[in-house]
Amino acid sequence: MQFNLVATDPQSKARAGVVQTDHGAIETPIFMPVGTAGTVKAVHQRELKEDIKAEIILGNTYHLYLRPGLDILEQAGGLHKFNGWDRPILTDSGGYQVFSLAGTRKIKEEGVKFKSHIDGSTLNFTPENVMDTQRTIGADIIMAFDECTPYPCDYTYAKQSMERTHRWLQRCVDRFDSTEPKYGYNQTLFPIVQGSTYKDLRIQSAETIASFGREGNAIGGLSVGEPAEMMYEMTEVVCDILPKDKPRYLMGVGTPANILENIALGVDMFDCVLPTRNARNGMLFTTQGIVNIKNKKWADDFSPIDAELGGYVSTFYTKAYLRHLIHSTEYLAGQIASVHNLTFFLWLVKQARQQILNGTFRDWKDMMVKKLMTRL
Amino acid sequence: MQFNLVATDPQSKARAGVVQTDHGAIETPIFMPVGTAGTVKAVHQRELKEDIKAEIILGNTYHLYLRPGLDILEQAGGLHKFNGWDRPILTDSGGYQVFSLAGTRKIKEEGVKFKSHIDGSTLNFTPENVMDTQRTIGADIIMAFDECTPYPCDYTYAKQSMERTHRWLQRCVDRFDSTEPKYGYNQTLFPIVQGSTYKDLRIQSAETIASFGREGNAIGGLSVGEPAEMMYEMTEVVCDILPKDKPRYLMGVGTPANILENIALGVDMFDCVLPTRNARNGMLFTTQGIVNIKNKKWADDFSPIDAELGGYVSTFYTKAYLRHLIHSTEYLAGQIASVHNLTFFLWLVKQARQQILNGTFRDWKDMMVKKLMTRL
Repeated sequence: MQFNLVATDPQSKARAGVVQTDHGAIETPIFMPVGTAGTVKAVHQRELKEDIKAEIILGNTYHLYLRPGLDILEQAGGLHKFNGWDRPILTDSGGYQVFSLAGTRKIKEEGVKFKSHIDGSTLNFTPENVMDTQRTIGADIIMAFDECTPYPCDYTYAKQSMERTHRWLQRCVDRFDSTEPKYGYNQTLFPIVQGSTYKDLRIQSAETIASFGREGNAIGGLSVGEPAEMMYEMTEVVCDILPKDKPRYLMGVGTPANILENIALGVDMFDCVLPTRNARNGMLFTTQGIVNIKNKKWADDFSPIDAELGGYVSTFYTKAYLRHLIHSTEYLAGQIASVHNLTFFLWLVKQARQQILNGTFRDWKDMMVKKLMTRL
Repeated sequence: MQFNLVATDPQSKARAGVVQTDHGAIETPIFMPVGTAGTVKAVHQRELKEDIKAEIILGNTYHLYLRPGLDILEQAGGLHKFNGWDRPILTDSGGYQVFSLAGTRKIKEEGVKFKSHIDGSTLNFTPENVMDTQRTIGADIIMAFDECTPYPCDYTYAKQSMERTHRWLQRCVDRFDSTEPKYGYNQTLFPIVQGSTYKDLRIQSAETIASFGREGNAIGGLSVGEPAEMMYEMTEVVCDILPKDKPRYLMGVGTPANILENIALGVDMFDCVLPTRNARNGMLFTTQGIVNIKNKKWADDFSPIDAELGGYVSTFYTKAYLRHLIHSTEYLAGQIASVHNLTFFLWLVKQARQQILNGTFRDWKDMMVKKLMTRL
């Protein structure tokens, strides 16, 4: 994997770059749609490529391990072949499920025991087997196995957990570096900075992670309920330590405003379920601000969802029609809203990139953050 | 509306024709995807047009009356403008809901009182206001208000109901002929033959319906649970009476085999929820036969869903991937399966038409019926 830094904004730490993978290039800053189980919910692969213009999508190790399972993925020749997505894929390691499935898992030094949310069976995830699993899934970018701590998290636990995540990282690296990709294209491993909302821990973790000298680095454990200002503070501290010549991926973030603020702090890559999950509940992110399409005010609004954004769904379908679909709990509602929101998120990062290249990012960002948070 | 009979099969009563409407031509025999609430479930309008190649879709008066409601539809300029479908639309009158919502409606001579399935409020449907409603929805083809009787149905009730349906038809015709279309294009009214599974009633009803001399005629009250042979017997009796120079629409039918057999008896138009409803349950109709995609045998079948059928979803996605999606209850499963099944149904009627034009329909039909009923 190659990363080329193309431009840096003069008035912020925003960067524009290009990540080269064997499945093609990714222009950064980038937003990565989440395809948990090998599908971005309610979105066809053709729409992802041609309408949304996604450059890389996520898969989730925990979910893919359970369904369709490693046998099927390996027989298919990896996830790209299985789901037909021929651009880059990044897989989360299961570290997020250590957080989100906290009620049904046990952490030990060796690894994590999960209870399957499908059939209750036991899953043992270790740093080593999570590397093997991601080798088999065939992601271009593989994440280290970590613990994503909750918010709030007491200092002692945050420190213990971070230190274990660092020990797990060494085990991940040892396993990853002693194994080969399975399908003829390269894979790379990103380590993850933890440390909860404690500045000193974040500094310690960022220094540790940077010392591994991997091809890219991630920031985890944020966007788990902490105030946005606290997230920005942590991101800034960490970005100032992580190497400039490697891409920085802020996991699970976030709203359009969160994304722009974090780009300003030096983040290159983002992912979040927000655009698709909120779409299914009728929350639209548009070039003019936030629309709750369920509201009565849209019932007789026959204007396109977002004429300025462009693209098939946003210009073809009207607000009134989409409101009708969501009130009628029709499948098409989630389909339209998901494609629209993802198109918007990809448009947003592409705009941000252009502003960075123009050297005008900072002022544009300040203006956009206000606009995008407006509720229409 | 114009109907031109183009060809008749020498060895059956199958016909090929063209229905001309102000929203374009429909080549018959045709299958009409069902878009109950102004959306064919899980299918984008672009997919309906470009992938499925639908020529006409259905809407349902009862559902559209409740949501989005007539005010919104009228403000939009009719259903075509509201949902963006610019080809022909046919609306069912609510007569099917007299059957399907039997527990919550009361039939009187004046009309039918429904209890809304959404909020329990009372709806009064009369032959007159159902014409007005369909004028407002703006369908190209409007159905008379009738009672679709259940199966089995005792003779006395079937006769009484049929006679009332005939009286209602006169009232529909009076209202329809004394009102004008609202949006600048023509609308036409199809009456509906009833009579349950009684040959003498079907004959009587077909003669009555034919005597109205409308531009097209429909056969209702079939495909409600009776054996297929009984359905074919009724269709044959009725088709032999309905005028040859008008299109014949068999409501709510059916499986691929049902469609081919009824084409052989002289039916021109079909609609059914089967391809979309069964799609969502994992039942696929393919050029090779019926596939229950949930079955274990497809778990490692990485071949396209239906290479012979062609089209994006059927050639791009594999059986193994679709099986994974349906087991994971992913939205995309219903989307893929719905587009596939509808593409197949439209392909099937197009093939049938070509065989009629070639004069080879009968043998082809006998071969296809066997093939299509095979469970793979």
